[in-house]
Amino acid sequence: MRPLPEPASEKLTLASVLYALGDPVRLELVSCVSTSPGMACSGAGLEVPKSTLTNHWRILREAGVVRMAVDGRCRRVWLRTDVLGTQFPGLLDMVLRLTENESTPTAVH
Amino acid sequence: MRPLPEPASEKLTLASVLYALGDPVRLELVSCVSTSPGMACSGAGLEVPKSTLTNHWRILREAGVVRMAVDGRCRRVWLRTDVLGTQFPGLLDMVLRLTENESTPTAVH
Repeated sequence: MRPLPEPASEKLTLASVLYALGDPVRLELVSCVSTSPGMACSGAGLEVPKSTLTNHWRILREAGVVRMAVDGRCRRVWLRTDVLGTQFPGLLDMVLRLTENESTPTAVH
Repeated sequence: MRPLPEPASEKLTLASVLYALGDPVRLELVSCVSTSPGMACSGAGLEVPKSTLTNHWRILREAGVVRMAVDGRCRRVWLRTDVLGTQFPGLLDMVLRLTENESTPTAVH
């Protein structure tokens, strides 16, 4: 597998990570990949155009939230839990938990 | 004081709050107002044009992160800690802590 470019851990900034997470589709993608590490980028099953999806994954990768690699005709994706955990301890877990709370049917909308 | 419009607590979304926090200037503004509740919007002492600053405060207010009120010729601002604490428990404290860590001189950049 050929890894795609990603920022070095010390280049990550809180603002760019929060910006990358600050979109409902991207929150859903992050939630998907947290339960399916190494999933295909196309496998999230969201009803968004392919180009939009590609753009969302790129924003997440360039902010340092996910790692991506080309595997034949497919792109695979992982959360950079190690790096995020070191740079911003607890943030990713909290965002995943809040995303889950927000999407449960019992949540007040 | 005349309050400016703000979203009702149940209208806040995690994505829009994260988006609002996902900018270095806005993180700094949030950090300022956390230590000086009721401060004047113009009082953050940042080197950004006034129109840019106004826009950043508006994004924070419309996302539900801050509350603003007109006080004579000045606009005052507060964090909506109550609402944020109920909707997204722990998030604001974590972001403030991580912002502080990131801006300490010992942080690796």
